[in-house]
Amino acid sequence: MRDIRREIHQYPELGFNEHRTAALIAARLADLGIECRTGVAGTGVVGVIGTSGPTVALRADMDALPVTECTGLPFSSKIDGVMHACGHDGHVAIVLGAACLLKEDPPDGRVLFIFQPNEEGTGGAKPMIEEGIVTGVDAIFAGHVDPRYDAGVIVLTPGVNTAYTDAFDIEITGRAGHAARPHEAIDAVYVACSMVVQAQGIVSRGIDPLRPAVISIGEIKGGTVNNVIAEKALLRGTIRTLDAGTRGLIFEKLRRLSTSMEQYYGAKIELTFHAGYPPLVNHEREYETAHRAAIDVTGSENIIILQTPSMGGEDFAFFLERTPGCFIRFGARKSGHEAAPLHSPRFDFDEEALRTASEFMARAVRLEIETLRQEIEKAGR
Amino acid sequence: MRDIRREIHQYPELGFNEHRTAALIAARLADLGIECRTGVAGTGVVGVIGTSGPTVALRADMDALPVTECTGLPFSSKIDGVMHACGHDGHVAIVLGAACLLKEDPPDGRVLFIFQPNEEGTGGAKPMIEEGIVTGVDAIFAGHVDPRYDAGVIVLTPGVNTAYTDAFDIEITGRAGHAARPHEAIDAVYVACSMVVQAQGIVSRGIDPLRPAVISIGEIKGGTVNNVIAEKALLRGTIRTLDAGTRGLIFEKLRRLSTSMEQYYGAKIELTFHAGYPPLVNHEREYETAHRAAIDVTGSENIIILQTPSMGGEDFAFFLERTPGCFIRFGARKSGHEAAPLHSPRFDFDEEALRTASEFMARAVRLEIETLRQEIEKAGR
Amino acid sequence: MRDIRREIHQYPELGFNEHRTAALIAARLADLGIECRTGVAGTGVVGVIGTSGPTVALRADMDALPVTECTGLPFSSKIDGVMHACGHDGHVAIVLGAACLLKEDPPDGRVLFIFQPNEEGTGGAKPMIEEGIVTGVDAIFAGHVDPRYDAGVIVLTPGVNTAYTDAFDIEITGRAGHAARPHEAIDAVYVACSMVVQAQGIVSRGIDPLRPAVISIGEIKGGTVNNVIAEKALLRGTIRTLDAGTRGLIFEKLRRLSTSMEQYYGAKIELTFHAGYPPLVNHEREYETAHRAAIDVTGSENIIILQTPSMGGEDFAFFLERTPGCFIRFGARKSGHEAAPLHSPRFDFDEEALRTASEFMARAVRLEIETLRQEIEKAGR
Amino acid sequence: MRDIRREIHQYPELGFNEHRTAALIAARLADLGIECRTGVAGTGVVGVIGTSGPTVALRADMDALPVTECTGLPFSSKIDGVMHACGHDGHVAIVLGAACLLKEDPPDGRVLFIFQPNEEGTGGAKPMIEEGIVTGVDAIFAGHVDPRYDAGVIVLTPGVNTAYTDAFDIEITGRAGHAARPHEAIDAVYVACSMVVQAQGIVSRGIDPLRPAVISIGEIKGGTVNNVIAEKALLRGTIRTLDAGTRGLIFEKLRRLSTSMEQYYGAKIELTFHAGYPPLVNHEREYETAHRAAIDVTGSENIIILQTPSMGGEDFAFFLERTPGCFIRFGARKSGHEAAPLHSPRFDFDEEALRTASEFMARAVRLEIETLRQEIEKAGR
Repeated sequence: MRDIRREIHQYPELGFNEHRTAALIAARLADLGIECRTGVAGTGVVGVIGTSGPTVALRADMDALPVTECTGLPFSSKIDGVMHACGHDGHVAIVLGAACLLKEDPPDGRVLFIFQPNEEGTGGAKPMIEEGIVTGVDAIFAGHVDPRYDAGVIVLTPGVNTAYTDAFDIEITGRAGHAARPHEAIDAVYVACSMVVQAQGIVSRGIDPLRPAVISIGEIKGGTVNNVIAEKALLRGTIRTLDAGTRGLIFEKLRRLSTSMEQYYGAKIELTFHAGYPPLVNHEREYETAHRAAIDVTGSENIIILQTPSMGGEDFAFFLERTPGCFIRFGARKSGHEAAPLHSPRFDFDEEALRTASEFMARAVRLEIETLRQEIEKAGR
Repeated sequence: MRDIRREIHQYPELGFNEHRTAALIAARLADLGIECRTGVAGTGVVGVIGTSGPTVALRADMDALPVTECTGLPFSSKIDGVMHACGHDGHVAIVLGAACLLKEDPPDGRVLFIFQPNEEGTGGAKPMIEEGIVTGVDAIFAGHVDPRYDAGVIVLTPGVNTAYTDAFDIEITGRAGHAARPHEAIDAVYVACSMVVQAQGIVSRGIDPLRPAVISIGEIKGGTVNNVIAEKALLRGTIRTLDAGTRGLIFEKLRRLSTSMEQYYGAKIELTFHAGYPPLVNHEREYETAHRAAIDVTGSENIIILQTPSMGGEDFAFFLERTPGCFIRFGARKSGHEAAPLHSPRFDFDEEALRTASEFMARAVRLEIETLRQEIEKAGR
Repeated sequence: MRDIRREIHQYPELGFNEHRTAALIAARLADLGIECRTGVAGTGVVGVIGTSGPTVALRADMDALPVTECTGLPFSSKIDGVMHACGHDGHVAIVLGAACLLKEDPPDGRVLFIFQPNEEGTGGAKPMIEEGIVTGVDAIFAGHVDPRYDAGVIVLTPGVNTAYTDAFDIEITGRAGHAARPHEAIDAVYVACSMVVQAQGIVSRGIDPLRPAVISIGEIKGGTVNNVIAEKALLRGTIRTLDAGTRGLIFEKLRRLSTSMEQYYGAKIELTFHAGYPPLVNHEREYETAHRAAIDVTGSENIIILQTPSMGGEDFAFFLERTPGCFIRFGARKSGHEAAPLHSPRFDFDEEALRTASEFMARAVRLEIETLRQEIEKAGR
Repeated sequence: MRDIRREIHQYPELGFNEHRTAALIAARLADLGIECRTGVAGTGVVGVIGTSGPTVALRADMDALPVTECTGLPFSSKIDGVMHACGHDGHVAIVLGAACLLKEDPPDGRVLFIFQPNEEGTGGAKPMIEEGIVTGVDAIFAGHVDPRYDAGVIVLTPGVNTAYTDAFDIEITGRAGHAARPHEAIDAVYVACSMVVQAQGIVSRGIDPLRPAVISIGEIKGGTVNNVIAEKALLRGTIRTLDAGTRGLIFEKLRRLSTSMEQYYGAKIELTFHAGYPPLVNHEREYETAHRAAIDVTGSENIIILQTPSMGGEDFAFFLERTPGCFIRFGARKSGHEAAPLHSPRFDFDEEALRTASEFMARAVRLEIETLRQEIEKAGR
């Protein structure tokens, strides 16, 4: 698993371009004697073992981020400006590890191994679902490495786990001009900066403090040279909320900010929202299965039950809107290191987590198939 | 001249990369039977006619700007992201036109035709001077097309013409992180925007309102994707002032802004100044020569005497620190068009201005050589 | 009760100046034949019925706010700039109403009626406790009218109910000067405004979005006339948090903001924190008593159990740090009116709430005394 | 003169309330045997000597500022919050001193001594002119002490001397509410601060840097207490410009700021302009007279000719719109002291300036009457 992870880590690929990664996965599944379908929803790969009975799926995401790696690891990214800063290299390794364990000693049912493209971008879960890959699937599990908890720890959150993750772009068109004559121009850089500063007040003054909300502007770009006033500036950001009301309120306030700044500065301001993922909500039955699997694999003392959700997003949410399932976090802090957060150019994790996680995944599949069989029997009576 | 200008306009080249432009100039000078030296201070070209007597130079700048042209002209830039948005294509044509006129009927002295690289960037005037090209030059003239005045008009300003043009970079290093957990990161985009907004107060509150000053931030860049909090952001700007005191005050206030924001946000902020051009100050004798030449060429009714300087910069200032001379503006508004300002992606000018300007330049050379001869005689008595 | 409430409403008194209100309370208690002590911790009043047995206290706050009333009510405030905008007029009436009910049919124990000064300001609870008034008290209850819920509804929150409520002052000393020469002055108004805008980023970027926090600046004052640059400006605000970590982080960030702005602007900035109330945490036994009393008085269908705390503060928290008890909200929305929030100059409430609330209070006292008796008996065995 | 100045300094009076000051002036004029009219345009006083011939007026302003004195002078203001921080106490003494000199040795004409109320506020010049006091006056002079120049120095500026001085109020009405629930309120303090920060960009980005402009907000007031979100906030400021175009542009931009902030925040924002004084423009003939008088009194070496105007305002401008005249500055720096600027609570001046100034004033009157006589004679031929 370590080798797989490191191989993938060196050749990170952005969403829907996971060609090399998908090929590697297909090759490894073939090595294990597991049949698979490739090219699902672009670059997705789906392996399967078993032919009938209760069907349980494991899902891993495969894509990397447009981040320039600064870890200094010997197996650092060889692709400039692209990095597995979110641990998806590990997720692929975990599901392949679970596939290996389950293939060795197959459970009495069907197991799907879903390798999904583009979790970070516009989402690969939805197109995969639309291609029918979870039709007939009874339950699904997915996990994420988490550098805030020690390797070996399994973290479970009942109910709501993640947030609405909407993206937005703001494109400002001012009027270019000579840097020495600001009054003849409309300075798109200044308009953009002024909007970023104003936008802080949306969360700090406009939102119920008891309803978590984040507006982060991850990217700004404007102008090309120091002595020309920029005609254009671009802001790209994300909005995180846990309830539809707060989400709508932020949309409305950003719209009003754009309209009023447009009017004030005389610039043209185009605000576009890109609807993201809904909150991920774990199902009760699969949460219980996950809890039991965690006890079996890591022991009660290494389980953390977290009552608060994360403001992060996860397009596994789309799977759970349709198929019962549970999302799990795997502690992965490197001991002796201060943990760099997810998405940081310094992010890394303890590869020991891979073993715990793949054992957990295999165990969860077995327990869930048992549970499903019992329910079928019960219902059959 | 029109053809030359349009040819150059289609193939704009950034500072110190004016290879094609320099080759074209050298070819045209050769066509006129004028000897020239190339490769001066990089890509500079210097032609000469005459061998002895009073020596007068004409200087044109050759470089273009990193601006994407939006004029829709049939001879628009063919180089993506580069444009002659400052009229230097015209300046080259003007001096070549004057060379043609002076070669036909040579004055009783020496004339230098200086084609200078990199006026917009870090300056090509200084390295040319350091290569000795104005040693022995008695007077020098240069001009600029100006879309604020009608073609045919000549604009003269006694004394101070342009401003100190210092550039600065601000590099902000925060701490990258997941967009959903702002408290774990230091958001370089927000720090940058906050600094831009704060910096407005330097001019509006910190500077004597009677001493003109501009701080323009032409470029901002931070982050790479909407859902990662940016580790780095870059601001690039220019400072324009007319006096050393105000210039120093702005430097100090930007330094204090950087230090205090660094302390507040816990980011690392590196501020670097790049000393630019000094104010351009016309010499009295050459101003008088220019005035007389303008009357001869365009008539008193088409001369505008401007008492206020421009906040623009011009590295011809370095020539005038050493050699007596005068800088002239040539009206070049396209009739029936609203004038796009210099440096705008929509900038264009009336090519009629080229004829007026080249006749003026040739006339100024002749009058100045006469004046210099008379002074020599007077001194000789 | 209505008459008492309206009488008090017309003569609102700020914290520790509730002389008229205290006199009215003492007179009404006397009318009921209830002995009382006045002048407790300044203007506090404590009535008592019964001489021995389990002791239960009811607490009302008496003070008004420095707000100018705009309700247009016939019994509007007659004191300019002072208003019962927080419903304490009603709280006094409720506890007097409960006293009347309990005096008519006294329970088998002692009941204290505590009328506390200065809930809104620096707190009257602590000094009352320090004078020993709750020594020997076994349980305590207090309530608050709430315009967000219909009259007749009782709202209960287990555990944490309210927030840390710290206040702060920021005093800015710049350098005064002529409005026409900003560069000679340090503009305290501008520094203050810049700090308010900067401070928005503390909550929006610096705090975990899952940990509720508010910074509100309720008052700003700077300068005396339009054409003199202000030497001094004052900001007065409040900080609301639910956990000590977030509280400390905000303190630290405000300190850093002050220091860095001081350095940037060259102004003197003095930041002073005034520690407020801790979070109010209901005790389990008294929460159960309150729940039972609510069922008896208003029926299950009119009880709302709220799982989230309020960001408001309540110095009843000090009583609960020492004495078991419970805090209750009484729905008080005027039907057919859009509810003005607490502290608004347009705040009013439905006086029907007074009856429900006083019956509830009397009922809770009776149930609690019973419970305490049973526990004593149980322990006695 | 010193005693008069100090007496007035101790009892400063705001505009149109200069009752004590006017009475003192009337008494001193009576002591000198000079007739006077009081109650002109409210509290104005006009003394006169002579009955016929060319008529020259001297004008002094009498009002103080709402500033709390911090000079520590033995003759500091005895009126809380009011101070002669603009030297008008000295101006009164200067004109009384000149009256004394001219009464001793009267020139061959008429001399008016005009003591004007309310120079700092909405202006006392206009109402005095409307009462006809300068009808028949041939020339008028006024002066101002100036702490930036040494006592004994006389400062003269040809042409434009001062700026347009327009005032404005911005009244913001948000929605009050509890400090813990910002989302239910519209925070007038935050809106006000945000506007002040935004307004910096008007001067720094929106105005030609070669056209001086100032927007100063001298006063801000909002809210009454730290824990109530303010319903109302008030900004009071002044705009200084030298040309009508820039003035109009600033008006327009402030209007757009108000409208767009109103729309963004949902607050009501009322912006009111109060037209102030026009630029003060010295007349050529009286400028020449002043120059000659200065040479006579203080010598050429103590005259400074200033080519740049001040951004300050002066309602003496209204007199000069109608009557030829000249405005003079009298150096008044206290030697060995760092000069506190005009309007500062620490402002003071060297009383030696009073003697120079009154001698100058008397001399200017004599020279102007001579000049006028010569012109009449010349015209008579």
